[in-house]
Order: sequence, then C-alpha cells, then structure tokens
Amino acid sequence: MIRVGVVGATGYAGAELVRILQGHPEAELSVITSRQYAGTAFSDIYPALYGIADMLCESFRTEDICEKADIIFTALPHKLPMEIVPELLKKGKRVVDLSADFRFRDVKRYESAYQPHCAKELSEKAAYGLSEIYREEIQSADIIGNPGCYPTSVLLPLIPLIRENLIDTETIICDSKSGVSGAGRSPSVTSLYSEVAESFKPYKVAAHRHNPEMDEVLSRESGKEVSITFVPHLLPMSRGMLTTGYANLARTAKEAEIRECLQHFYQGRQFVRILPEGKIPNTLHVRSSNFCDIGCKIHGKRLILVSAIDNLVKGAAGQAVQNMNIMCGLDESSGLDWVPCPL
Amino acid sequence: MIRVGVVGATGYAGAELVRILQGHPEAELSVITSRQYAGTAFSDIYPALYGIADMLCESFRTEDICEKADIIFTALPHKLPMEIVPELLKKGKRVVDLSADFRFRDVKRYESAYQPHCAKELSEKAAYGLSEIYREEIQSADIIGNPGCYPTSVLLPLIPLIRENLIDTETIICDSKSGVSGAGRSPSVTSLYSEVAESFKPYKVAAHRHNPEMDEVLSRESGKEVSITFVPHLLPMSRGMLTTGYANLARTAKEAEIRECLQHFYQGRQFVRILPEGKIPNTLHVRSSNFCDIGCKIHGKRLILVSAIDNLVKGAAGQAVQNMNIMCGLDESSGLDWVPCPL
Amino acid sequence: MIRVGVVGATGYAGAELVRILQGHPEAELSVITSRQYAGTAFSDIYPALYGIADMLCESFRTEDICEKADIIFTALPHKLPMEIVPELLKKGKRVVDLSADFRFRDVKRYESAYQPHCAKELSEKAAYGLSEIYREEIQSADIIGNPGCYPTSVLLPLIPLIRENLIDTETIICDSKSGVSGAGRSPSVTSLYSEVAESFKPYKVAAHRHNPEMDEVLSRESGKEVSITFVPHLLPMSRGMLTTGYANLARTAKEAEIRECLQHFYQGRQFVRILPEGKIPNTLHVRSSNFCDIGCKIHGKRLILVSAIDNLVKGAAGQAVQNMNIMCGLDESSGLDWVPCPL
Amino acid sequence: MIRVGVVGATGYAGAELVRILQGHPEAELSVITSRQYAGTAFSDIYPALYGIADMLCESFRTEDICEKADIIFTALPHKLPMEIVPELLKKGKRVVDLSADFRFRDVKRYESAYQPHCAKELSEKAAYGLSEIYREEIQSADIIGNPGCYPTSVLLPLIPLIRENLIDTETIICDSKSGVSGAGRSPSVTSLYSEVAESFKPYKVAAHRHNPEMDEVLSRESGKEVSITFVPHLLPMSRGMLTTGYANLARTAKEAEIRECLQHFYQGRQFVRILPEGKIPNTLHVRSSNFCDIGCKIHGKRLILVSAIDNLVKGAAGQAVQNMNIMCGLDESSGLDWVPCPL
Repeated sequence: MIRVGVVGATGYAGAELVRILQGHPEAELSVITSRQYAGTAFSDIYPALYGIADMLCESFRTEDICEKADIIFTALPHKLPMEIVPELLKKGKRVVDLSADFRFRDVKRYESAYQPHCAKELSEKAAYGLSEIYREEIQSADIIGNPGCYPTSVLLPLIPLIRENLIDTETIICDSKSGVSGAGRSPSVTSLYSEVAESFKPYKVAAHRHNPEMDEVLSRESGKEVSITFVPHLLPMSRGMLTTGYANLARTAKEAEIRECLQHFYQGRQFVRILPEGKIPNTLHVRSSNFCDIGCKIHGKRLILVSAIDNLVKGAAGQAVQNMNIMCGLDESSGLDWVPCPL
Repeated sequence: MIRVGVVGATGYAGAELVRILQGHPEAELSVITSRQYAGTAFSDIYPALYGIADMLCESFRTEDICEKADIIFTALPHKLPMEIVPELLKKGKRVVDLSADFRFRDVKRYESAYQPHCAKELSEKAAYGLSEIYREEIQSADIIGNPGCYPTSVLLPLIPLIRENLIDTETIICDSKSGVSGAGRSPSVTSLYSEVAESFKPYKVAAHRHNPEMDEVLSRESGKEVSITFVPHLLPMSRGMLTTGYANLARTAKEAEIRECLQHFYQGRQFVRILPEGKIPNTLHVRSSNFCDIGCKIHGKRLILVSAIDNLVKGAAGQAVQNMNIMCGLDESSGLDWVPCPL
Repeated sequence: MIRVGVVGATGYAGAELVRILQGHPEAELSVITSRQYAGTAFSDIYPALYGIADMLCESFRTEDICEKADIIFTALPHKLPMEIVPELLKKGKRVVDLSADFRFRDVKRYESAYQPHCAKELSEKAAYGLSEIYREEIQSADIIGNPGCYPTSVLLPLIPLIRENLIDTETIICDSKSGVSGAGRSPSVTSLYSEVAESFKPYKVAAHRHNPEMDEVLSRESGKEVSITFVPHLLPMSRGMLTTGYANLARTAKEAEIRECLQHFYQGRQFVRILPEGKIPNTLHVRSSNFCDIGCKIHGKRLILVSAIDNLVKGAAGQAVQNMNIMCGLDESSGLDWVPCPL
Repeated sequence: MIRVGVVGATGYAGAELVRILQGHPEAELSVITSRQYAGTAFSDIYPALYGIADMLCESFRTEDICEKADIIFTALPHKLPMEIVPELLKKGKRVVDLSADFRFRDVKRYESAYQPHCAKELSEKAAYGLSEIYREEIQSADIIGNPGCYPTSVLLPLIPLIRENLIDTETIICDSKSGVSGAGRSPSVTSLYSEVAESFKPYKVAAHRHNPEMDEVLSRESGKEVSITFVPHLLPMSRGMLTTGYANLARTAKEAEIRECLQHFYQGRQFVRILPEGKIPNTLHVRSSNFCDIGCKIHGKRLILVSAIDNLVKGAAGQAVQNMNIMCGLDESSGLDWVPCPL
C-alpha cells in the first residue's frame, strides 16, 4: 500500500482526490489537510462520504505529512505549492501538484501569467503530467505539474496530429466550455446558482492563464512558437468540459485518416476514447469518469476536433491519480476504472 | 407620476423592484441606493437592463431620498429597516418594507425570532401587506410590512378556509419548497451552482423564522393560538416557490365546496388563480409573474392545498408594488400585468 | 461467477443495472435484451459505456436467456413481467422483477391499482425486496418484487418506528419529491428539459399507484389497515428522491430516542445511514449511490422524518442487485460499494 | 387594432407568439390554430396563461383564418408553410413565416438543404426578415421569411463588418450554442431532461441546415461566395443562444474601431446592444427579451465576436413581431419593450 496525503482536501479538486483515493486498491489515504476546516471531519464538509471518509482534516505541517505519506498531492491555489513543495521533496517525498506552479518549463512564461516563481530549479525538473503524452518523464519525476483542465482537453486531440504534421499550427482556435465546478468552492457571486442557471457566456476572452500553458506545450511539440486563440466559456452544469477545436489541415486528408492517426496514437491507453465516425463527444458521457472522448470532422480544408472530459477527474484529480499510478509503477488505471453512469 | 425610491436595489428583491418599477406606467423610479455598489450603474450589476436602467446607485441618505421620492421601498436585511424607516415616515414618506421588521403586530414574537425591536410603536401601526387579504389596512397605512415569501404561499390558500371554519387549525402542516434566489445574492457555499444542482433538501426544519410570522397571522385569523408545522426545502431552480399544505377538514366537505370557497373569496382579485379540478399548480406557470396559483384535493378527511408563486415577485417585489398600487389608489395590477412566458 | 441477464436493459433502470453489474466482482453480465434496440450495441444507446459495455441487445427469448443466465432481472413496464416470469421460474431461474407485478401479496390490491394479475400464485410466493427489512424472505425466494422508488424512501424510515409503536399510523403524511429520471426514457412532453427546468409541481396527488404498495406493507407491519396520505412531486433534477414524512408520535419521545431506535434497527446495514443530530438528508449526498440517508426532527407532538435516495439506485437497480447478493449468499454490498462523488 | 392570427400556436415558437401578441397594444390576436390541439383552450396547454389566453385552438382552414386576421404568422415545420401561404396571399393577407420555406432567394440552395419547393415564385418575392438589416424590404413585402435562430445570432454581428470590408470572409468560423427549446416541443429522447442536464455536445457538425441560410446571406452581402464553418451545440438550458464567431481581420484594426463600426450601424436600433469594452454577452442577460447583445475582442490578427439572443424571441417570435411592426408602420418595438428580468 502506498501511503498518500492530500494537501488542500476540501476544495473541489481535493475532495475529488479523496473520493478516488478512498477507493484506490493500492493506496491508503493517510492524511488530509485543510486550512479552513482543520479539525473538522471530511464527511462534515462532504456528507456524501459520511461513514466512508470521516477522517479529520489537519492543519498543514511539513513534518506531520511527511511522516504519514510517501506520495503527496497538493491541491492548493497557485503560489502556495511552490512555497511548500521544495521542502517536501527534500524529505524524499514525491509530489503531484494540481496548481499551475510546476506546469511550465519556461519560468518566464509562468511569471508573466502568474507571479514571480520562488522555486525555479524545481520547475525545470518537473514533468508535465499529461499522462498519455509524457508517460516517461512522469515515471521518473519527483514533482509533477498536473495539467490544467482546459489544456488537457485542448492538448490531447491536438498533439498526435501536430506530431504527424497534419495541421497548420498558426490556425488553431479552441472554443472551450466548462462546468462551473471549475471555478472552485470559494463563494463568489458569479458562481451562485441563480447567476449560472440559464446563463452561458465566454469569459477571459483570449486572456485566460491556461492559454500560455497550452502555448508552451504546443510550441515544444511543434518546434516553433505557437499561439492559439483560446476562448473559455462557462456552462450551466456542475461537471464537464468540452473543447471544439478548429485548425486548417496542413495537407489534404480525409476524416478517416485523422481518426486513424488518433486511434493509433492512443492505442492501448484506455482513458482516451477515439469515437467512431458519426459519434460526437458529450460531457454527460464522461461525467465522473477519467475518460477523454475525442471526435473529429472535416469541413473543406478545416479540421474540427471535439473533446470532452470531466473537469474534476481527467481535468484534475483523476489525471493526478493516473500520474501517481505511473510514478509508482502501478497499472495506469488502478483506482480509476469504475464503470461510469449511463446518465 | 408617483416618484419612487428603492433602498437596497442590488439584492435580488431590490433588483426585481427596479425591473417592475421601470415598467410601471404610473411610477417613476427616481432614486436607488446600494451600500455595496454606490456610484455604480445599476446595469453594470444587472446587465440585462443595460440601456434600460443605467441610473447610478447612491449611498443611502435620508435627506436625499426623501427629496426625490414619495414612496420608498426598503429591500434590506432585517434590523436595518427599523433603524431608518421612522425617519422616513417623519418626513411624510410612505414605506413598503420587504424585511421582517414590520410584519409582526406582536413585537415579542418578532423579538424572539429576530432581535430587539427599536421601533415598536411603528410596528404596531404597520399593515401586513398580504394584498388580497388586508387591502383595507394597506390602503390607509404609511408603513407596510411586506410578507415573507413562504408566508405568502402558505397564507393565501389557508385564510379563506379558516375564515369559513373549514379546517382544523391544529392539524396544519406546510411542506414548502423554494428556489435558491430566496437565499439572496450574498456569496455563500450553500448557494453555489455546484452545491445546488441535483440537490434537494429541507433546511431549518420546523425552525424557520417565517414560522412565527405565519403563526401570528393564522392565530389572528382563527381567533386562537395556531402553531403550524412548517418545513422549508431548497429547490434546484432560480425562481419559484411551491407549498403543499395538509390539514384535517373541520367537517365533511367536498373538493368542489373547497374550491368554490376559494373562488368566491378571490373573486375579482386577478393575481390569485384558483385552478379548476384536475389542474395542479406548477412553479413554471407563475415564473416571473405576480400570480399565486392554488389547487386542492381531498384524501379521506384530509385536505391537500397546493400553491405556487414566484418567490421574487408575488413573494417579494411584485406584492410590494401591488401594495404601493393599493396605497396610492391605483389599479391594483398597474405595472404588474405583463403576459407571463409560456415556458 | 454468477451469470446474470437483464431483460429491458435500455430503460433507465435497466441501464443502471448494466452499469452496476458490469462492475460487480462476482457477477458476469451475460445477456441483455431490449425490444426497441435489439441488434444494437448497448454503448450506442448509452455512450458513457463505450468500450465497457459494447455487447449487443438481444430480442427477448425465454430459451436464450435461460441458457445464458442464472439470475434474471426484469426491468420492464408492469404487466409484461407477470407474463414472462412464470416461464423463467419453471426453467429453474431466480428472478428480481423491478416492476410492480410481484410487489403485492394481496393480489386484489394490485388489481385495483393496475390490472388483472395472470400469475397470482407466484405473486403470493414472491418476497418484497426491501433489502434491509425482509432479508430472510429474500434469501430463500425465487422471485423478488423489487420495491418502488417512493415506497423505498417512505418505508425505510417508518418501519422501525412502527415496529416499536412509536408513531400513530393514522396520521402519516408523506410528501415525496422525485428526479425526473423516475419517469423513464420514453419520450413525453412532460419530461422534456424545457418543461422540467424551473418547474416544480405535485402530480397524481393522493392518487399514485405506489400508495397502495406502501399501504399494504405498512398495514402488514402495523397489524391494522393503514392508509397514508401520499403526494409525489417532480423535481428539476435527473436523479434523486427525498421524502419528508410527518406523523404524530404515539407517545412522548425525544428526538434522540427516535434516532437511537433507527440506529439500532439499521446497525450493521451499511446502506442506511442514520444521520446525527443537526444533519439533514440531501439528494446530492446519495447521488449515484445505494445509500438511504435518514434524518429526524420533532415539532411538538409531531415527528418529521426525512429520507433521501437515488431513485435509480436504492430506488431501483441498486436495491435489485443488493437483493441478488442476498439471494446468492454474497456480501450484501458486493458490487455496490463504490465511493460516491462529493459533488 | 391589427387583427392577427397564429398558425401552429402550440409549438414553442407559436406559444411565444401568443405571449407577445397578447400583450401587444396595437394587435388583437383573433385566431390561433393547432393540428394537435384543435378544440383545446390554449391555457390548457400552457397554463402560465390561464385567465389570459383561454381562447380555443382551431383547426387550420384558410377561409376561417382569412376572415378573422389580416396578418398571419405561420409557425409550422418547414414544407407545410409553402403549401398554405400562397393561398393566404391570394386572399390579400400578409404573412410572416417562421419556417425555412421563405428564407432563401436561391431556391436551389433551399432545395438542396430541405426538399423541392412548391412556391418558387413567392420565395423570390419574400423578404428575409432580419429586422435591423433588411427593414426596407420588410416594409413592403407581403411575405417574410423570418430568419432562423442561429442565422440571427451569426449575421447581426457579421454583416456591418462585412459591409465595411473589415473581415476576411474566407476565415469565418461560428461556434454556436443553443438552449434546448430550439429543438421544439415534440417529444424526443434527446430533449428529455435527464439526457440534457449535465450534458453539452455539438451536433450536426458542419452539417446544419442553417448553414446554407447564413451562407446565402453572407454571399449576398459580400458579393462573393462565402461558406462559413458552423458548429452548433446544445446547452443545458431552456432559452438562450450564444455565438462565438472567429474571423481574420481584413486589415489592421483596433477593437475600438470594430466596436464603433457596430455601434454606428446599429445606432437607433434599440434591440441590438453593442456592449462597451470589457462587457461580454451572456444568455441570461437577454432571456425572454428581444435583445441581441454583441461584444468583441481582438487576438492578434483574429477578431472574436460574441452575440447572445433568446432563441425563441429575437431568434423567432420576437423578431417575427418586430417584422410585423415594420410591415404595418408601427413603432418597431411596439409590444416588445417589456423590461427584462435581472435574473
């Protein structure tokens, strides 16, 4: 049994980590922390887990958590992880960080989108935790920058095609839509039920912090600077994220060829499902699961890619556990292979 | 034109007042105030009204508001109105207060549910603004305690039957369900979209502050102390309130007789619709309107009453404007008779 | 491995059976049938299970299904099961029927609510599949009448208290609210998204077919004819059911005593969670799980009971699998003990 | 008073016409028809209008309707209008048709997307009812092809910019999202609440029938064949439509210039609101209103346009009434200028 800790267990991503790890056959959730709820039982905050996860939330103390856990998930707002992770690594722990702090190899890019980085050397050593793409780096890394939810949904369909030079990277537009749990559990007017129901809108148009994250990865993958147009939108639903991507084909290609390229790339990776012709991704079909469903369609010279994930699972906690599995040499799907609900 | 002011115009009830008053043919909305948003255009907070209600929110100052308005709506959290209303009345203004501060004639009842009352004499002079029931008191009053949303949905079906001694007041149970806009616009975890969607629950079981308000009115109406069992629930919807009431019949009666009693009582009062046999109230059918739809059914010796309102309209701002109309000798439905949406 | 078949696998309850059985460690889902979708892959109808449950739906043929399965779930509209189940039993199969056909021991009661019964002798031998209450009958029965969703949510909190003579059975009122998946997957105007969103209403007021089902069980339990007042309502949500029950206490009792009675009764039955003081059931907390959460509160001489279930799981497919586990001598929670989502 | 008839009054667009026309100060709704509900009171189907629109639905008979109405709205599935409209025109009536039958000047384009056209000459005489753009044609036309909801949301932001040669028409991509009421009131599995909630998906990717409609108009406007990439999506909401459009700028331009071009074009047209910098359209802000809100943003050489409408109002019934107003020389906003709800 791997002893596991979750720092920041009472935000939505943290709680989802608790859910998944509690059911993980090879992990033992031995410590959870929460600034706001220290001393409170987890199930008092999330009563769905009453009788299942009644453990108390603790205050974060490096010593305590290092004593109890070998793998540590940090599910905190950015800026905090880079302050505490170096200490955890020094104590020989391995960390999967769900914030943006370790997602960038180019620290300057991080700093222009976020704030000055106080653990630059670590940042350069971190693996970008897009499980299906960077499996090898993840295996050997001690610190994983777990991808943002939008980048996960954007990059999984694009990278195989970019590697095969099938698309013109100067023409990429990603129109993404996210369920409101992505905004977290902090109370804010814009996340109130009455403001979200019957509401749909873009936000941070071409100005979202996940944009430089995607650009960095896509630039690395394509060997030249890529800057995609990215517009996120807020959906009136709790969980789910769908990206509709547009790009010009770099050469004439048929839909079947695109699909085959994707299928071949993801052969044997059970969490990416390339849908057959005529089938279209839908957030409901991946809800609460670690799947990323991908579909495609060609219109003239333009390729349309559609991907759907659960923003809290494949877009956060699920992929984080998948990364832990890879790091620890477990089956990649261990603890993640529950049967999803039909509706 | 009646010059009207709204104090606390940026909460949900206040905003709904602005919506209704902007379309009122005989009222001119001349001043709105907001502590939080003083200096901001109303339409910056509620962009639906961009181009329609772009007036600036002001800080509340008695002098200013009294200069600009003759009728003043106070849409503030309880405790604040009793501090400012006496001054407004002294200046010769008439006030419709949407908080609990002036709903009780028995100040002690108020004080046991809320806090010490600092304007007791006014409280005794206030009219309880249940428009269809207390029209005469409302006409001549200078201060109206606008009813709570739950009491409105509970009292409208019950009072006519109690006056006719048709039900046993010791057996009344009201199981009420409210849309989440009733919790207001203040950010709180429990009103977040992700906490409300797919969620249904009772809250403050037999402990809600609207309970003593209903009890006072029902006791007055029936001439003896009444204490109903009241359980409010939270619905995953923005607007709407439905109460299912249960009471034993005081004597044998047929459904038709009950319906007739209600129809007779509400004859000519266009906002209360007594539904014909086989029709059942539904929040969707009264959404955004000032209607209260009422249906009934008998099961053995037990009467089942169902009423539906929009909690922000008939349960708050709509009834408040209806009361203003009555106070000012206007047609009761002036500014409130838009055609509701079919869906 | 137990070989299992599902007849009627493409309705919502049937699909939920497929979901649960696919993840059951001791069952092998060997055959599924569907009139409407014979020849179609299950995952074409429910793409969430693409790659997981791609088996073809077959037409129902007694021979075929009996060859492939030992335990058969029938998830069909009432009337059909009583026509096919006798044949299945003759072939030595054991059946869990999710319709109303085998829920009544008193066939006349069934016939007055539904239609003439064509397998009366079987009906009398059937066990009522309320797992926590009738475990012993279930163990030895060959045919289980799986309870309705409303009866499950109504009976679980009431039966322990009735057995202890704690409540006056003449005063029981149950105000129940159900998510719309309870209406099934057949297209109908009343289940359309645009008719359900922002809509809340009672239906079949004191006239629902689950009423006689509850009355029969409660009469049996209390030893005298019981007829409760039951009002179902439709919630704007997919999954979830909550019942608020009201009854007069038969004698003075404190809340703690009621809670203790329930806790004692359900000791060791992991799917019924008696919530501690101050905690209130919520459909979101049991979503997609087999839990029934129960809370209580006393108001004067009146007891208020609240129970929450997922209508498709504990209210249908989950309890059906729980019954299979009991019938087959498996751990009662086998295949049902996934960790529920925190939101 | 203009005497008005609605053919097909019980679909969602038809019902919305009834709602709007009932409140229209210069129109008298004198006849409504419905195949399915002939003989039934409108308010039996849409109880929100109980006491307001209790008139009976009639069977459609040319004679009857022509006797009672001067302006006729046809809100029927395509193919039916072209069969009945010629007769209505012959009797001297003027018609606003909400189907696709009279939206195309190029009948071949219609026929390749729909079916053979049986009233070609009429089709060529029809005005395309995009009120703000084709006001003059509408004024004098006897038959209006009321635009589709998607085309309305796509064309309003694009046309002014195309007329000013500000965008490269070969690069237009429109990613549109619609509430589910757009699918109508006919029962279908895909519109069931349980299939739509928590679901978001594209459909008819680059294959929607509104695509040729837009292409025809854009080609006409730009003087060369335009073929945009159009992907519609289904939102989990009742009412609302938002389009995010992408196009390369034809020349260097600043955001302010784009905004100014739009503002200038729509000067004095109250239903199109060009939002100031930093404000973004949101379906909730136009719900139940006839507004089209438009915002813009530049990313590199790419222009991002966002427009929001209510699909049933500006996208159907509201624009149809606006067209009637124009045809009849009334104030364009007559009957359409209610104050929208803040939430």
